[in-house]
Amino acid sequence: MACREITCKLAIIGAGPSGLLLGQLLQQAGIDNVILEKKSAEYVQGRIRAGVLEQGTVDLLREAGVGHRIDMEGIVHEGLELVFDSSRDRIDLKRLTGDGSVMIYGQTEVTRDLMEARRASGGASFYEAEHVQLHDVTGVQPYVTFTHEGQPFRLACEYIAGCDGYHGMSRHCIPKEILTEYERVYPFNWLGLLSDTPPVHHELVYVNHERGFALCSQRSASRSRYYLQVPLTDRLDDWPDSRFWDELKRRLPQSLAERLIIGASLEKSITPLRSYVAEPMQYGKLFLVGDAAHIVPPTGAKGLNLAASDVCTLYRILKKAYHENRVDLIGRYSDIALRRVWKATRFSWFMTSLLHTSVTPDHAAFERKMQRAEFDYYMNSAAGLKSIAENYIGLPYDLVE
Amino acid sequence: MACREITCKLAIIGAGPSGLLLGQLLQQAGIDNVILEKKSAEYVQGRIRAGVLEQGTVDLLREAGVGHRIDMEGIVHEGLELVFDSSRDRIDLKRLTGDGSVMIYGQTEVTRDLMEARRASGGASFYEAEHVQLHDVTGVQPYVTFTHEGQPFRLACEYIAGCDGYHGMSRHCIPKEILTEYERVYPFNWLGLLSDTPPVHHELVYVNHERGFALCSQRSASRSRYYLQVPLTDRLDDWPDSRFWDELKRRLPQSLAERLIIGASLEKSITPLRSYVAEPMQYGKLFLVGDAAHIVPPTGAKGLNLAASDVCTLYRILKKAYHENRVDLIGRYSDIALRRVWKATRFSWFMTSLLHTSVTPDHAAFERKMQRAEFDYYMNSAAGLKSIAENYIGLPYDLVE
Repeated sequence: MACREITCKLAIIGAGPSGLLLGQLLQQAGIDNVILEKKSAEYVQGRIRAGVLEQGTVDLLREAGVGHRIDMEGIVHEGLELVFDSSRDRIDLKRLTGDGSVMIYGQTEVTRDLMEARRASGGASFYEAEHVQLHDVTGVQPYVTFTHEGQPFRLACEYIAGCDGYHGMSRHCIPKEILTEYERVYPFNWLGLLSDTPPVHHELVYVNHERGFALCSQRSASRSRYYLQVPLTDRLDDWPDSRFWDELKRRLPQSLAERLIIGASLEKSITPLRSYVAEPMQYGKLFLVGDAAHIVPPTGAKGLNLAASDVCTLYRILKKAYHENRVDLIGRYSDIALRRVWKATRFSWFMTSLLHTSVTPDHAAFERKMQRAEFDYYMNSAAGLKSIAENYIGLPYDLVE
Repeated sequence: MACREITCKLAIIGAGPSGLLLGQLLQQAGIDNVILEKKSAEYVQGRIRAGVLEQGTVDLLREAGVGHRIDMEGIVHEGLELVFDSSRDRIDLKRLTGDGSVMIYGQTEVTRDLMEARRASGGASFYEAEHVQLHDVTGVQPYVTFTHEGQPFRLACEYIAGCDGYHGMSRHCIPKEILTEYERVYPFNWLGLLSDTPPVHHELVYVNHERGFALCSQRSASRSRYYLQVPLTDRLDDWPDSRFWDELKRRLPQSLAERLIIGASLEKSITPLRSYVAEPMQYGKLFLVGDAAHIVPPTGAKGLNLAASDVCTLYRILKKAYHENRVDLIGRYSDIALRRVWKATRFSWFMTSLLHTSVTPDHAAFERKMQRAEFDYYMNSAAGLKSIAENYIGLPYDLVE
């Protein structure tokens, strides 16, 4: 079958929230783009992920024209709780940051909103695209080849955005001698359970208990998301719902445990915890965005938000490049994006270290005392509280100018 | 020879700054005490230690009537510098903490001032006391036996303060089943050099360089104290003065290296870095004070200051117990002291982790990026800067009431 030739300014690899959001912002700016996604739309839509959006993420979604449903259905959280050995402390985000907050709105819903906007915008998307390959990313005219419904395609473009996640192929197009990878794997997993039960508390509760970390999160007023720190060796089969609820109750302070409403799980999954950053985040005309370049452990909910700030940086650079001929900015994407990436990586690592119990007997007693002292310091210092709060709502985006 | 019997309210074991300061404060309050010291006065006086005093330490020394020379000769520092890979950032202690500062005044000088005050107060001190043993510390009437100039003594007392440092015997009087020890040993040492040269900078400079940590400290306008992070295996013989100065220059940013004035070393020593806390800090009528109960790595200069806050807590408790019959406070010493001990242990650990280069290849690249991100975050956040500043000048003393 003859290869079909199509063209666009930006080829976007991956139709997760990063790719969809970038595509939508650029469509609005008149910079045409094509999205290629390996999986089906139903599969992408069905993935259950994060649910806490920073103000900057919400603002960017609004800028992309998809803020309507978030503003209707999202739940504004002006605080969160940290618990250490059953003692509860609230972090008043609003007061500490001067009106800051986060928004509870599931990634699944973000994806759905963005997909609808994509359809409405008429931007081209190829789901279930096969054999996607990037070519000449350092040349004058890069292009992408792929097969869709048996038809081979050649997509000529000016730039390529790799929004295809950690397991995607985009990052692997950067030669090994140019790419440096930084990684830390944490010695425990998260076991998550989603259920149609009212959340145990109206705000998120992060718990450091001697039996391990627990998180009481939520997707809506009637849908809860709970997590437990579990050993690396545990499997889903080891955790029938009843055991999950029992263990969660043991880790919660009495005042919460007695209010916990349990129910059947809609979904249960095990998530590994990892910090990973690839540098640089660009190579020639290829830009890496979101999980394709970095992974944070879920503690502190930075993953999706960091993808959004990458998108924002790349969007502003491309807009200035195309509309104001600021082609000089193109080479700065990686440096600008990485500054915020590393700060969020630091915060996620800090929160992970603060909240999980050590599994290495080496120094374990000292580490626990350090955690206790960190809690004691941070919860009793205005500067300490503000430091956690400003990171939790999201540090400011770096300017592109 | 017949045993001589003497009595006092408080027996103080150790004539370092803790023991001397506690003794002096209690003498002023009319609570008589006897100090027993294993070493000679000359030896104690000659030990070279820390040189940065928190405001609270200075205030306590003034309260003890030994503030005169500090106020004349001490140098007030309203800031310090942190350097990461040659980029210099100043932490403005005064502005960030609302008028806070630290005082540069050597521990050697503090000891000398306190020894003079001790002589003036007429308080009994036995230097070169041998075979010191504590008895009946949980009984109604504890006592201490020792030998001095061949004469056996029996010192009857109401309380005993163990101010005899990490290697002292006081802590070992607490049964193993009651004492819990927390410890972390860091995988590097500090090599310190004292010289009669003007300090390279008017404030302290803490340097994280890829070759290792360096600190530019000082004792006076004409006496410098410099430190280098060195491997655990290095010995003093490995570091003739010339090598020390060369290595220091390599770790300093160019703007400082070119102003470094070198000279012969007055003293050179290797210090291990350790975090250590013993809990509880009291047992019956025995109280542990300062290094007898806890050791911090020198990064951040908390050791002497923490000893001073222990002294302050114990002094206030004993004064209230004797003057206001608040005997109920006696049992609270350990809890009150430990809260601040753990916070300072946390800060020293944080500063040590932030400033030293990793020697374990495991994750080393990730750790260095985390340090870079910590610097980047802390130096560019008002809350982050304030957090370092408020810890550096010393967190508030816990109230005794």
